[in-house]
Amino acid sequence: MRPLTSLNTWDFVVRFLPVCKFIKKYNGSTAICDLVAGITVGLTLIPQVIAYASLAGLEPQYGLYSALCGGFVYAVFGTIPELNIAPTALLSLLTFQYTHKASFGSVKAAIMLTFFAGILELLCGILHLGFLVEFVSTPVVSAFTSAGAITIASSQIKNLFGLKYNAESFIEVWKQFFMNLTEIQLWDSLLGFLCIGILLAMRKLKDYGEPPIANQNQTEKSSVYKKLIWFTSVGRNAMVVVSCAVMAFIFQYHNQKPFSLTAKVPSGFPNFSLPLEPIEPSNGTNGTEISEMIGELGCGIIVIPFVAILANVGIAKAFAHGKVVDASQEMIAVGLCNIAGSFFGSYPVNASFSRAAVSSASGVRTPLSGIYTGLMVIMAFTLFTPYFPYIPKATLAAVIICAVVFMVETTITKLIWKINKLDIIPFVATFISCLIIGIEMGILIGILVEVCKLIYFTSRPKVLIETIQETVPYLRVTFSSSIYFSSAEYGRQKILKHCFNSGQEIHRVLINCINILNLDYTAAKCFESLLKDLQKRGKTVAFLIPNDRIRKVLEVSCEAKLTVFKSENQFKLSLQEGNGVNNADFEAVITQL
Amino acid sequence: MRPLTSLNTWDFVVRFLPVCKFIKKYNGSTAICDLVAGITVGLTLIPQVIAYASLAGLEPQYGLYSALCGGFVYAVFGTIPELNIAPTALLSLLTFQYTHKASFGSVKAAIMLTFFAGILELLCGILHLGFLVEFVSTPVVSAFTSAGAITIASSQIKNLFGLKYNAESFIEVWKQFFMNLTEIQLWDSLLGFLCIGILLAMRKLKDYGEPPIANQNQTEKSSVYKKLIWFTSVGRNAMVVVSCAVMAFIFQYHNQKPFSLTAKVPSGFPNFSLPLEPIEPSNGTNGTEISEMIGELGCGIIVIPFVAILANVGIAKAFAHGKVVDASQEMIAVGLCNIAGSFFGSYPVNASFSRAAVSSASGVRTPLSGIYTGLMVIMAFTLFTPYFPYIPKATLAAVIICAVVFMVETTITKLIWKINKLDIIPFVATFISCLIIGIEMGILIGILVEVCKLIYFTSRPKVLIETIQETVPYLRVTFSSSIYFSSAEYGRQKILKHCFNSGQEIHRVLINCINILNLDYTAAKCFESLLKDLQKRGKTVAFLIPNDRIRKVLEVSCEAKLTVFKSENQFKLSLQEGNGVNNADFEAVITQL
Repeated sequence: MRPLTSLNTWDFVVRFLPVCKFIKKYNGSTAICDLVAGITVGLTLIPQVIAYASLAGLEPQYGLYSALCGGFVYAVFGTIPELNIAPTALLSLLTFQYTHKASFGSVKAAIMLTFFAGILELLCGILHLGFLVEFVSTPVVSAFTSAGAITIASSQIKNLFGLKYNAESFIEVWKQFFMNLTEIQLWDSLLGFLCIGILLAMRKLKDYGEPPIANQNQTEKSSVYKKLIWFTSVGRNAMVVVSCAVMAFIFQYHNQKPFSLTAKVPSGFPNFSLPLEPIEPSNGTNGTEISEMIGELGCGIIVIPFVAILANVGIAKAFAHGKVVDASQEMIAVGLCNIAGSFFGSYPVNASFSRAAVSSASGVRTPLSGIYTGLMVIMAFTLFTPYFPYIPKATLAAVIICAVVFMVETTITKLIWKINKLDIIPFVATFISCLIIGIEMGILIGILVEVCKLIYFTSRPKVLIETIQETVPYLRVTFSSSIYFSSAEYGRQKILKHCFNSGQEIHRVLINCINILNLDYTAAKCFESLLKDLQKRGKTVAFLIPNDRIRKVLEVSCEAKLTVFKSENQFKLSLQEGNGVNNADFEAVITQL
Repeated sequence: MRPLTSLNTWDFVVRFLPVCKFIKKYNGSTAICDLVAGITVGLTLIPQVIAYASLAGLEPQYGLYSALCGGFVYAVFGTIPELNIAPTALLSLLTFQYTHKASFGSVKAAIMLTFFAGILELLCGILHLGFLVEFVSTPVVSAFTSAGAITIASSQIKNLFGLKYNAESFIEVWKQFFMNLTEIQLWDSLLGFLCIGILLAMRKLKDYGEPPIANQNQTEKSSVYKKLIWFTSVGRNAMVVVSCAVMAFIFQYHNQKPFSLTAKVPSGFPNFSLPLEPIEPSNGTNGTEISEMIGELGCGIIVIPFVAILANVGIAKAFAHGKVVDASQEMIAVGLCNIAGSFFGSYPVNASFSRAAVSSASGVRTPLSGIYTGLMVIMAFTLFTPYFPYIPKATLAAVIICAVVFMVETTITKLIWKINKLDIIPFVATFISCLIIGIEMGILIGILVEVCKLIYFTSRPKVLIETIQETVPYLRVTFSSSIYFSSAEYGRQKILKHCFNSGQEIHRVLINCINILNLDYTAAKCFESLLKDLQKRGKTVAFLIPNDRIRKVLEVSCEAKLTVFKSENQFKLSLQEGNGVNNADFEAVITQL
């Protein structure tokens, strides 16, 4: 990223309002591309967010409210055309975990969470803290995404079978499921599995279709038939949900209620309201202060934006087409989406990989396509909400399960095993702890394991000790990296042991400093003690090409001038000539110390 | 350390019972050296441990009980002749912190703590976990030692001035001191400062004297006069304590009690008792289960052995004279000293630097000298205890203050600044948090700061990107170290940005792998995306001397054969000849992906 001072005014505006760049070149053909993509994404999005809302423990309309602002705000501040900011499965699950117990109501809690998550994302963007996500390695991300998908799918099992029980954790869900096996509802289960079958089959259909504007260079135009297949596949959620609702309506018309249905929801625009309002005490109930409300949200305030940034940066990179992603601007954009949303009843939102893929395949050109998706969402909650009470719960469960089941990464384990077997440890540790203890603890444990691995490698550098058989034999010691407090003692012991075991016949030690770029205080002191110990055993020590900094550090630490050679040949020559071996400076200091 | 399998029986016995080695060569002259050193150390130790007992919140005799087993057990299992295992100032302070609130009495708590500390030290020794102390850097050790010394000295201020108040933390101590200023006792204060003056002056005397058996090679024998001066200096604690006790006795004989004196203590051997005994319920009071008692000791069970091992390994190294310290055997020895001690009323014990220095200067030859010190301790608690009630508290405070004041390392800050300015941060962070929050949190914070520093350096390796102007210009990218998840993205961005800013005229990139010894899964995947991104911009990528492992990892990750060169000249040659540039294999894969 170029420093701010070198930007002129226009560059500056474009950097913080990327829409300016896109607007400048906006024309009819770009607009049509964006329109097609926007509508296609809307078809995927609307049934998904209705389902995700129930995952978050909220009424269906909150899914639509949450999808409202993302499109408009991201169109102005976003940089990646494919991204669409709306509810996602993982954030819905996390929102549920942090809000369903709130004493002041889960809706208010979710809205507050959105506001704080937005503020934090905005701050991370402004302070360039995005690099923090680099400490979450790919195995850890894969593990927690997979574990999250399994947890989400498990949570929908009850709706799929028409069961009614309350359970939160993965283990509790399955325990309750088996305890309630006898209560399984025939019609709900049939509908649920039918929906899953149809959704998976229609998903597969995509392979036989063709996206509308795939490749500019393509010579042969795809047939309308293939495009239709593609659209049918992409609109599968909408079609399944609408069909099931119609079916339920017909049953109800004949006074039959075989399925458990979604509750009645209010119609129309969400109310504009402040996300941070203390609850006033009213007839008999105590009020709640903002600080108490924040306390109830707990570490959700940290976990949700962290997971959101992690997912967002990852998705942005995947669709950046080789350009460098301005991670800070992305965080600012998503932060603003959340802050704006929190005034319109939104729960935390984020980009989703599946939507980005649909958008990309639909030939999106600029983030402005989000505006068209947003308009579709407005249509949905003004016109469609009266029909929501006809959507069967089992259908929504099927939509969620089919969306998350492909988030479980099974092939990665094989690849990790092939590339670096040790990386299986953070993967398995994260996966198991995400399932058993919870997503946030799982991520933390994964990061911890990775950091331990990192510290281990830093603390155990390769120390190559070779006996060079010249006319005057000598030991050559080569460190593979910089030396810090954690590796200094290891290196010292290794060298001392080698000298101890190999006997006393070799009196010259050449320490090759080529890879030592840095040396901290502890390491410098350790070198001092090593030199003294070697000296006591009658060995003379010389250094090969230390850089100026290392040389200075060692000389200050040992209070002696080092014998330094610029090449190994120079050292060998000095051995033959007999100079440089006496190392008089150093010896003088050793006796003085 | 040699593996166990390569040892014959005798080596095996010697390794676990180092005394066998020493006994084999034991003769008259060695015994006399050890006797002189043992008695000299005893003279320093006895008044010190009486004082330290009060620091630990225990009666004076417990100091002596604690000094009993160390000498005998370390004589059998220890490897460093200079070390003497008995109470130290820092462990006394920590013992006080973890035991003075115990519901089952601080004596019993201290004994239990000793037992568990011993078990943990023994385990660490057996499991070779000593390397853990390597993660505590020198600046952190210096900072917590200095802060500990200041806390200890501060805690003695009340005894020095004859004040009576209860305060634990450094801040509380000084707050209480200033609140009780008007209560200062004239005679206690006079005596205290007089003792400090005398002790410091006598300490200085050592510079004019000469230790008994300093250097075998010394030609000129030191005069008896100089040796006498040296012994006077070393025995200063004993002399000051005895003089003050005699003075207090004379005053009392004349019915005067100007000083606040030590309490009356029982005489004779400590009782042999099990360290782990639940407290039986008796008339009205409830009993306490072992598990509850352990709960009350809290993290002291971890902190005390950790600090003990840290100090011990450090002191052992300082006196190892260039030999490699068998850290595991040292931990086993100290662990056994504590376990044995816990049966005789000991609180946690450890080696002390000042005693080791006295022992070294007195010409100690083997750890058997500890037996003589142990015999002196036995004499002390059988013969001297009736006189303890005459020792003024201010005198003991003076002994403690004069012992710890030299633990405050003031010169190290200057040296750290000279050697590595960044290391000032862990030093200051540890120092301040030790003083304000407490020693154990201070050490933890220090370790955390150091680990963050380490991760930072690992995550931000040097990535050198040079434009080489040959007939066909190319970019040479050199990484300074192995690449892990935390540094991979940084490297990728740096290279991409460079390619983006430097324009499109350079089409060849040579990645120098000489320093890359390891690559984890995340880094491998990051390399894959980097190669794809570079490919998209029309650049061809070649690798310079990757090792076999790195080459395999990259080929699996990128699903392509790499273009590899064994030297830069070979690469240059290939540029001129035009082969190797097309990189056909890789290109094929990129389009396929």
